Amino acid sequence: MADDVTAQSIAEIQAKLAAGAEAQALVTPLWERARAVEPKLRAFAHLPEQAPAALTEGPLAGVTVGVKDLIDTADMPTDYGSAIYEGHQPAADAAIVAQLRALGATALGKTVTTEFAWRHPGATRNPWALDHTPGGSSSGSAAAVAAGIVTLALGTQTFGSVIRPAAFCGVVGFKPSFGQLPRDGVHPLSPSLDHVGLFARALEDVATAFALLKLDAAAAVAIAPRDLRIAALRPPSDVASAEQVALFDDACAQLRAAGAHVEAIDLTDALPRLLHVADTLMGFEAAGVFGELRARFPDKMSASMAAYVDAGKEISEIAHQEAVGAQQGFRMGVGERLEGYDALLTVPATGEAPLGLGHTGDPQFCVPWTTLGFPALSLPVGMSSAGLPLGLQLVGRFGEDRALLAAAQAFLEAFPLHVGRPALG
Amino acid sequence: MADDVTAQSIAEIQAKLAAGAEAQALVTPLWERARAVEPKLRAFAHLPEQAPAALTEGPLAGVTVGVKDLIDTADMPTDYGSAIYEGHQPAADAAIVAQLRALGATALGKTVTTEFAWRHPGATRNPWALDHTPGGSSSGSAAAVAAGIVTLALGTQTFGSVIRPAAFCGVVGFKPSFGQLPRDGVHPLSPSLDHVGLFARALEDVATAFALLKLDAAAAVAIAPRDLRIAALRPPSDVASAEQVALFDDACAQLRAAGAHVEAIDLTDALPRLLHVADTLMGFEAAGVFGELRARFPDKMSASMAAYVDAGKEISEIAHQEAVGAQQGFRMGVGERLEGYDALLTVPATGEAPLGLGHTGDPQFCVPWTTLGFPALSLPVGMSSAGLPLGLQLVGRFGEDRALLAAAQAFLEAFPLHVGRPALG
Repeated sequence: MADDVTAQSIAEIQAKLAAGAEAQALVTPLWERARAVEPKLRAFAHLPEQAPAALTEGPLAGVTVGVKDLIDTADMPTDYGSAIYEGHQPAADAAIVAQLRALGATALGKTVTTEFAWRHPGATRNPWALDHTPGGSSSGSAAAVAAGIVTLALGTQTFGSVIRPAAFCGVVGFKPSFGQLPRDGVHPLSPSLDHVGLFARALEDVATAFALLKLDAAAAVAIAPRDLRIAALRPPSDVASAEQVALFDDACAQLRAAGAHVEAIDLTDALPRLLHVADTLMGFEAAGVFGELRARFPDKMSASMAAYVDAGKEISEIAHQEAVGAQQGFRMGVGERLEGYDALLTVPATGEAPLGLGHTGDPQFCVPWTTLGFPALSLPVGMSSAGLPLGLQLVGRFGEDRALLAAAQAFLEAFPLHVGRPALG
Repeated sequence: MADDVTAQSIAEIQAKLAAGAEAQALVTPLWERARAVEPKLRAFAHLPEQAPAALTEGPLAGVTVGVKDLIDTADMPTDYGSAIYEGHQPAADAAIVAQLRALGATALGKTVTTEFAWRHPGATRNPWALDHTPGGSSSGSAAAVAAGIVTLALGTQTFGSVIRPAAFCGVVGFKPSFGQLPRDGVHPLSPSLDHVGLFARALEDVATAFALLKLDAAAAVAIAPRDLRIAALRPPSDVASAEQVALFDDACAQLRAAGAHVEAIDLTDALPRLLHVADTLMGFEAAGVFGELRARFPDKMSASMAAYVDAGKEISEIAHQEAVGAQQGFRMGVGERLEGYDALLTVPATGEAPLGLGHTGDPQFCVPWTTLGFPALSLPVGMSSAGLPLGLQLVGRFGEDRALLAAAQAFLEAFPLHVGRPALG
């Protein structure tokens, strides 16, 4: 059965090709798996009728990629999760898609996004429990990686749209620093906050893909767990679930046991204001991006998004400018507070994926780092008693993406990944 | 009697010198006047025992200047209004003093500042009513100009320390854009907000001195009143006095009668936040500037200032960085809102100088423009029923100081200066 074949790591694929395998022979079974599980999973906005032709040249030859349907593809429709763009066919690949294809990766299909990457959910289910949300907005990408359909997937994050679905689906999610991955050909939501990010099952795959995309020739400098310096931002126990907090505490204990320096950090002087700044930025900017569409297609935008766009028009340009300035100020101020640490450790979400498909969960543990533009990783290191994944989040300093990936590798030596495969049923 | 001689305008002085007068003959009687009125007015922190030797070369030869005692002078003590620095003798002139002396101006004495330009008042009285505050922190400079002792005076403004005393004393006060006049040798209070400013009885003197200091060779382009475009920011009538609001309304009516375009502007989305940003900037920065002095000289700092410094230590560096960013954002945002206007018209203070010498008045109508760094002028265009001066304030866009001065000239053609001389008694 093709649906027993699951996507392999980049290193495994490279080894198979080196041993003489054909890239197409690695891609076609995954397309078959995608077709087989799609009726249950609903991860794809567009999945070709035929297996895509595998690219054969480049370090990512044979590697399948899911492309969030917010991101343009020249050979597949791109709806942006909106009825307004149903069947829309872009003329060109987004820059990030073109880069992955230049590296040899094969786009397997377009993965479901919430409407314009805002909150109104798409059809995707959580592969660990089909009646739970996969998170959003990059719902399909996280679910497709978790379901073993693709090795890599592209997402975007404006509030928490990479880190949160990664946590809910039990995969690694990486939102690099603001501006690190190109947004050309990606539908905007809030240009001051929009980031492109990556999903994979293993940290190594995310790190390899990021290094290839950034043309990093040299390997990152490794850190030993005992040399790690971690700023530990414990979540409030009235917001995060007891299991989520316990996972955080457990990680801190294991890190200390491995010799790492773990120090509590207090950012209560920044976090509430960062949420406020983010609300102002996204509210104002989304009104600018979607105001005309909302007026032209009153029946093709969800009521909640239409109301959000209308509310954003009430935010003044001056308030927005203040927020733009404050965002820069916070980047400086919080950056200084993180000096001397390899990473900040916190949670990626309030806990396991909530029951229900009508909402995608609370992004509040992601929004500060998105607003700051700091690199962030969600690592699937736990399982809840209900059998759903739990993650932890590592955050680095602005522009220090490689250092964060190296710190995460050391972190996982002390506190390894802990997820299996969803049974998909 | 020498105390009948009052300081003349720069143009009058230049004309007298051109007609053969000696600079010293213009300076000495004013020094005598200063000595005569000082027991009543208390405008000077240091007034030399002998008439200062008049400088004779340069466009400001024969022009007397009062130098706020926050500003270093190599030939006179500089106490910064603080018992900590009693008798302190700087080694060098502040840059702005050196510039004025290079232009030929003669420093008559050091004028009273509140303690470190913060709120704790000095001894100066209002020349229009000796039991009323002259305003602060540039109390002595405003009073000395109003009393006809000096043609020009130097002040500083961090919240409202030029504009407010100018209004209370019935003189012209000019706070140029942030950074336009050099602060080297001026004691800091809040480096993100500290400005050097000028006082004179006539707008022309302020404009001439500013042009000389900025080495502007060409005359500013004049505007006709009918070409003025004014953004009218009416003060809330629960904060400003009825007479102050009536003066504002009267000016708007006269400007319209002169053909000017006067349009109400609403900045309620910016003003409360600007006050908050200013409080954060000054609180945090003053704690940094004065924290060590406060610890070393616990008995030589006023209790109110010591408490303010202590409170500032509670403001986090991150909150300060947010405020620094927000300040820049507001400068952009409010600047855009003022595009197309020659000036914003508002009030410089809540009304006439309040009774009492224990406080220097409310700076809330100045703080937004200081925080924005926009150029601001206080013009003495009215008198209260109690016989005290009332002013109006014109604000320009950042860096457009010359345009503001030109707009003010046109404004005064429609709504002239309206103050006499205080009787000083």
